[in-house]
Amino acid sequence: MDLTNLSQAKVFGGWHKQYQHHSAVLNCDMRFAVFLPLKATSSSPVPVLYWLSGLTCTDENFMQKAAAFHKAAELGIAIVVPDTSPRGEGVPDDPEGSYDFGLGAGFYLNATQEPWKKNYQMYSYVVDELPKLIEANFPITDKRAIAGHSMGGHGALTIGIRNPERYVSISAFSPICHPTTVPWGEKAFRHYLGEDKSTWQQYDAVELLKHASTKLPILVDQGDADGFLEEQLKPQTLVDVAQKQQVPLTLRMQPGYDHSYFFIQTFIGEHLEFHAARLLAED
Amino acid sequence: MDLTNLSQAKVFGGWHKQYQHHSAVLNCDMRFAVFLPLKATSSSPVPVLYWLSGLTCTDENFMQKAAAFHKAAELGIAIVVPDTSPRGEGVPDDPEGSYDFGLGAGFYLNATQEPWKKNYQMYSYVVDELPKLIEANFPITDKRAIAGHSMGGHGALTIGIRNPERYVSISAFSPICHPTTVPWGEKAFRHYLGEDKSTWQQYDAVELLKHASTKLPILVDQGDADGFLEEQLKPQTLVDVAQKQQVPLTLRMQPGYDHSYFFIQTFIGEHLEFHAARLLAED
Repeated sequence: MDLTNLSQAKVFGGWHKQYQHHSAVLNCDMRFAVFLPLKATSSSPVPVLYWLSGLTCTDENFMQKAAAFHKAAELGIAIVVPDTSPRGEGVPDDPEGSYDFGLGAGFYLNATQEPWKKNYQMYSYVVDELPKLIEANFPITDKRAIAGHSMGGHGALTIGIRNPERYVSISAFSPICHPTTVPWGEKAFRHYLGEDKSTWQQYDAVELLKHASTKLPILVDQGDADGFLEEQLKPQTLVDVAQKQQVPLTLRMQPGYDHSYFFIQTFIGEHLEFHAARLLAED
Repeated sequence: MDLTNLSQAKVFGGWHKQYQHHSAVLNCDMRFAVFLPLKATSSSPVPVLYWLSGLTCTDENFMQKAAAFHKAAELGIAIVVPDTSPRGEGVPDDPEGSYDFGLGAGFYLNATQEPWKKNYQMYSYVVDELPKLIEANFPITDKRAIAGHSMGGHGALTIGIRNPERYVSISAFSPICHPTTVPWGEKAFRHYLGEDKSTWQQYDAVELLKHASTKLPILVDQGDADGFLEEQLKPQTLVDVAQKQQVPLTLRMQPGYDHSYFFIQTFIGEHLEFHAARLLAED
């Protein structure tokens, strides 16, 4: 697979780099970003946190605004951030141009409906194609954690819960916890997956946990001044099912914090330490 | 003076807020941003770092990308970031629409030429009007440090050197050290100040240090992979005159770093500690 380096900048002794490649799964060219700590060398590869961003984002939002590199450099953890949807000339967008569906809003699922299914296969891209590419081309191991924000929090939860053998830990900021019951999720799932709601459940963290055997540790931070909390996010539904199923999930309601990257930068260091406890543990 | 609060977000226990106000000096409405640490209360105001940004920036670039709040919260230092030029409908811009002159490129000077002089008075705005507004409306003291990046590094150096009674310390990332001799400075100064180059020298850090009595400590970080280093920035000219004049200036050439906020976020914590040593010292 051909990788084109688009940019690189030294940061905290390591490197932030952006790459473009052709995705066979998504049938388009994709961009991703990687933070490589100084400690990452071909003779000593490092574990990795995959970060999934929210609606309207690209690979850049987290890398520019989350203030994560100080701690990641100190711990010796790489960070990989994909885009939030397929992109490019041939990729269909919401004809109404809304922000919460189509480009920038792939919802980390595999679409089954026309005209979306040719490109909108973000689940397979994040779970399979991207890690394969990363592990073949960078000093990064297959010891992976997954985290995300909002729509990307939904992505991290559902991908982590469905693939406990591929990740060691899961965390989320302000995730869409129960998308099949909220406006953002209903709109996107109806378009991407069709009217049969039984096909939606595999992309809903609450529905998955009802039947999940995962014992991966899950950390969720949620600001109580987040304007999307009541209508779109619903973290209590996740806590309720996790308690019932004895999943080791911790929800921290953070007083006064909103939905922005100012919230994320405040607690990203603690999330990195949470993941490091598993990523850096001796097997 | 009326202040309109445009946004607020909790971060590291403190607050990031944006405000709009009418500037009498600039003859337009201006926006600025402030970080207030948790420690700042009306009964216990905190000292402040004024940050001046570079070409094309607004109040947002530093606040979103510099990763400064963890350390500022820990130290108990406020940060104030003005815009980089006057703004708004009535404010003239470069008719050719270049990025390095006009809107977003005020160069922290007081223009004397038409049509610029009515609005482009950023020197007086930063030195006088903005601190007066800040100290009257926020739990922030008159103990001030000043720092900046690129064009804003030039601003921090020249404003700090000319006003040693108003600031306790100066720092800069990748500053335009000797603007009267480089393309960015020559273009802007010719438009704002006219052809008489003797009027330019009061806005050139190297020229000012030739005659300055300042003993303020100055810290400069410069990446050696910065594409603007040779043509526009010229930090060695600053070191040479500082040595001659026995000004306590430290230039740190940082290997491999470029001109971006990835460079700034790597070393902003050390700059905050440098300023804190003076800002938090007992009088």
